[in-house]
Order: sequence, then structure tokens, then C-alpha cells
Amino acid sequence: MKNILLTIAYDGTNFSGWQIQPDKRTVQGVLTEVLSQVCGCRVKLEGASRTDAGVHALGQRATFRGAFGIPVEKLRLVANRLLPGDVKITGLEQVPMDFHARFNACGKKYTYKIRNCGEKDVFQRNYCYTVEKELDLQAMRRGAACFVGTHDFGAFMAMGSTPQQTTVRTIYSYHIGCQELASFSENAQTTKTQEKASPDAGKLISLSVRGDGFLYNMVRIMTGTLLEVGLGRLSPEEIPDIIASKDRRRAGRTVPPWGLYLDRVYFNEIDLKEEEQ
Amino acid sequence: MKNILLTIAYDGTNFSGWQIQPDKRTVQGVLTEVLSQVCGCRVKLEGASRTDAGVHALGQRATFRGAFGIPVEKLRLVANRLLPGDVKITGLEQVPMDFHARFNACGKKYTYKIRNCGEKDVFQRNYCYTVEKELDLQAMRRGAACFVGTHDFGAFMAMGSTPQQTTVRTIYSYHIGCQELASFSENAQTTKTQEKASPDAGKLISLSVRGDGFLYNMVRIMTGTLLEVGLGRLSPEEIPDIIASKDRRRAGRTVPPWGLYLDRVYFNEIDLKEEEQ
Repeated sequence: MKNILLTIAYDGTNFSGWQIQPDKRTVQGVLTEVLSQVCGCRVKLEGASRTDAGVHALGQRATFRGAFGIPVEKLRLVANRLLPGDVKITGLEQVPMDFHARFNACGKKYTYKIRNCGEKDVFQRNYCYTVEKELDLQAMRRGAACFVGTHDFGAFMAMGSTPQQTTVRTIYSYHIGCQELASFSENAQTTKTQEKASPDAGKLISLSVRGDGFLYNMVRIMTGTLLEVGLGRLSPEEIPDIIASKDRRRAGRTVPPWGLYLDRVYFNEIDLKEEEQ
Repeated sequence: MKNILLTIAYDGTNFSGWQIQPDKRTVQGVLTEVLSQVCGCRVKLEGASRTDAGVHALGQRATFRGAFGIPVEKLRLVANRLLPGDVKITGLEQVPMDFHARFNACGKKYTYKIRNCGEKDVFQRNYCYTVEKELDLQAMRRGAACFVGTHDFGAFMAMGSTPQQTTVRTIYSYHIGCQELASFSENAQTTKTQEKASPDAGKLISLSVRGDGFLYNMVRIMTGTLLEVGLGRLSPEEIPDIIASKDRRRAGRTVPPWGLYLDRVYFNEIDLKEEEQ
């Protein structure tokens, strides 16, 4: 009997989320089929996070146990050959039998990608959220800093979610990065008589939040709230009041899933608390 | 009656190519539906190039005529609102009544994107072709130079293609560019005990070829031949012999469609012949 820990990347576009569901294409479902085939026994895969439909992962983690014959060092290569192009095992290791991807996780990092000041791009439509009006990053950074710490995040949980024992969570860092984009279409030129056909590609803004846990839709609601700040419709100084209100209606809207990436799962408190951005 | 010239970008992944076909989702079909709706009359759209299923476009051009009421300057915005996310009108202008996107085109530029020295990436699977073994770019550039000029390209046309009046074409330039890739997953980190989970992202190699016309699959067969050169299985000095043989079997294989982009259509001989890379 062996216990295996996987690191998994997936493009969430064509998946109905992580969690296995009858008659739906899910990441857990596709991986379970392939791993069961490779191992020659039905495996039960436990993921660290149940990402929603359309949400991507750079570093999802999952464990499964099995008394399989295939050598551990061959498992990844063989499974990747059978997996479809939108999901890939990027790491695989044998771990102690009592290790569990969800129960041993002490925190996660999510990144939300926003394309700013550029027009919608046909090649990026599933991989970032587009905001054409320029965002005030300094104000957003002041707002993001208000989330850091231990707070009751009741205002940042989707209404109608399964009630939680507690809505208190700790955010360790909330980093907002920005890079100028080179247009994918930058070679495309047009006749001189034509209106400008290659708009500036704009900027890619990445909001990365690291915490011990997240309520349902919490990252997407915090992002929506920071967008209100970036658009000048909310002052960053109002965020502590919104947190204190525990009132979902005072926070921003839930931004779409396709900008969201499960970036990293932490199994070590030191990594979680002290990682450098 | 007006005659309209469009510039169009599309992600070819979910299209059965450009050309309208019954019961298939095609770029021409989707655009015809939307433009007919916006103009209030059935339009007939003529594209400069019939791209295959999976092939992308940065700068496809197409014309249509109509006696429609909507002001020309509003057409693009209204049509883009109705178009799905994977096709977009990036330019629109009124042109003389006798202008035709296909008949007035004097040349085209295609770009083929290869991800080299990196593992397959779930987010790039539909947008470039992955070659893990390092390619010899200097040899490929010597090979590409052999295509430049006026030649009979019969060896570089798919077998079974519709016979052409002539298989002589002129290539004006064949440029091979290379940029280091930043991994989309570069933030993803893993525990120290685990095998390396974020492989080097590698390089993005772009092969851009500009010519007065291309036979069926010609760009993909030339690319496949240059790949043989890059992998050291063919000497660049053999390319003139392969061209002279007019024998399809001596050229390389047809590389997959998802790395190919229709980059630009030329309506002006000076642009076609003298464009700087």
C-alpha cells in the first residue's frame, strides 16, 4: 500500500470544476479514471481544494492510496500520456500513509489575473478578466492591505453557502503585481487608411492572496471589492468597515471564475507565513 | 450600397475553419449571422484566406456589401457586442465598391509558433506546437533562406489537393524569431521534497513567412521541413534539392494546425515586398 501526493495544473475552461459529478467532465473525474487505469485498481483521489467551473490551477494538490504495481517513478509519465491536454500532473511523490492533501493543508494561495487598459483579446478570454478602464493600483494595494490579518470574513462569503463553523480566516499577504503586456497580435498590421487595429495590449494585473483558508467565493468577492476601489467607486479606507459589517451586500460583486488560479497549497506553516512574494 | 473591409482576429480552436459549412461552427458562418443581424439584410462575406480548423488569425481580412442603415462607425462596436468571445472585429473601414478581400490581396504573412525546450503547458496547448528537444535555430534560419525567392513549391502542397494552375509562388521573407518564455505557472512552488514541478518554460520560436500566395498546407509543410532541419535530421543545404524534386514525399510532415496564425493580408505590393520584420 502506497500513498501518493500529486501536484496538478489544469486549464479549467472545459471542466465543470474539480469535484467529481455524474455526467459532468470534472478534473477529479478525469484524473480518477486515468489513475485507476494506470494503477489497475479503483483509486479515490482527495484534492486540497474544490475549484469551481472555469477556475484554473497552477498547483492543485491531491492524494490517493493504492496497492499498485507500477513503480512510483513511472506513474507521472504514464498518467500524463493518458491525460487530456488540459490537465497535467506536474509533480508526484510518495508520502507517509497518514498524509492527506486536504486535511494536511494549512493554507493556500490564489491568484486573480486582470487584463487592464487593453481591449478584450480573443486568445486571453478564458485566462484573465478584462477591465478596460485604468485601475488605480496604489488605492487597490491600500485596500488589499486591509484584508491582511485575522478577521471575520462573513461579508465575503457567497450568500446561500453551506454554513461554516466559523467565518474567521487569516490572510497572510495580499500582493498586487503588474506587468506590461506584449500584444499577442503585435505583428498584425493594417493599411494606413484603417482605424487603429492593434490596440495597446495593456497591463496584466495579478492579485495574489495567501491565507489559512477561504470561504466560498471569498477570493472572487475580495477581488470584486478591490476592483471597486481601483475604479474609484469605493475608498480603500472603507474596507475595514465592510469587513466589520459582516454584510455580503456591502462588499463588491463576485468576479468571473476564468481569472482565478489556485496557485499553491501549503503543507508547512513556515512556507505559508513567510513566503516571499 | 456600401462595401466594407473588416480586419478580424480569431481563436481557431473551436471553429471548423473559416469557410461556411452546413451544421458546422465556422468563422465565416458566425460573422455572417451577426453582420446580417446588425445590417438587417443577408450579407455575403468574402474572406482573404480560408484558414483550416484549429488555425488562428491575427489579421484575417474580409469584405461584404450591403445597403444597410446603420452608420459605418457604429458597425464594429455593435457587431463585436454580438460576436462570441473567440472572434473579434479589430478593424473596419468603408472601401470602394470594386474592392474584394480575396481578389485584391497580393500576399499574406503566416506565423507558426513553436514552444521549444519546455514541457507541454496546459494553457498553451491550443496556441503553439511543443517540441521538447532543443532546435538548432541557426540551421533553421539557413534552411528558411532557401525558400525565399520564386520557386515551384509542388513538393510543399498537400497530396490530393485541388490541382492548381501553377504551383509557382514567391516568398519574400522567412524570419525565425525567438523569445525566452516566462512560465505562466512561475509562481507555483512546491515542497522541497518533491521532484521539480515547474520546469523551465523554454522558448517561443516564431516562424513568419511572407509571400504572394501559399498552396494548400504549404506553410505547415515548410514548417515541418524546417523542424527536421532544427532537429538535425536534414541539412539546410538539402532544401533546394527538395524544392527542385517537386516530390511531396521528400519534404517534412505537415505540422498541426494549432501553431498556425494568419498574421497579415497585404493589399499593397510595396508593403508585401518591403515590410521590415
